Amino acid sequence: MYVVVVYDTAAERNPKILRTCRKYLHHVQRSVFEGHLSEGQLRHFQAAVENALDLTYDNVLVYTYPPGTTPRRLEWGATEPAPSDIL
Amino acid sequence: MYVVVVYDTAAERNPKILRTCRKYLHHVQRSVFEGHLSEGQLRHFQAAVENALDLTYDNVLVYTYPPGTTPRRLEWGATEPAPSDIL
Repeated sequence: MYVVVVYDTAAERNPKILRTCRKYLHHVQRSVFEGHLSEGQLRHFQAAVENALDLTYDNVLVYTYPPGTTPRRLEWGATEPAPSDIL
Repeated sequence: MYVVVVYDTAAERNPKILRTCRKYLHHVQRSVFEGHLSEGQLRHFQAAVENALDLTYDNVLVYTYPPGTTPRRLEWGATEPAPSDIL
């Protein structure tokens, strides 16, 4: 299924969550990733996120789309991520 | 239609985009808002966003859902926005 992932984390955990997300998904905005995951991959991704973050403080939203569908997305402004944002 | 809006902006424009988004949508994560907008409201919202931000630098992603549908969303970690995040 297609997923859109948006996270909000303390700055010191940002490099770790970036690396985790980039193993599974494509980077579309500073803290937004998208891509296709199976149910099994989603479980592995969740475990990796739980390992990377402090979920008593950090927050992750995962929007999932029915199989065969992808989101309709408008983009306003500068295209991201800029090279300087990529660790 | 239901929309999910995620923005990335310079810190100095954050209060203005927060105020703009809160006029139209519900705050679900630090820079993520959701809610129902008509096509007309979406055009007004876009104009307000263009006024609030510097779109040569800032970026806004708007995910739209077909009428009558809402996103499936998983939330991992701390519930947001925390009171301290609300200006």
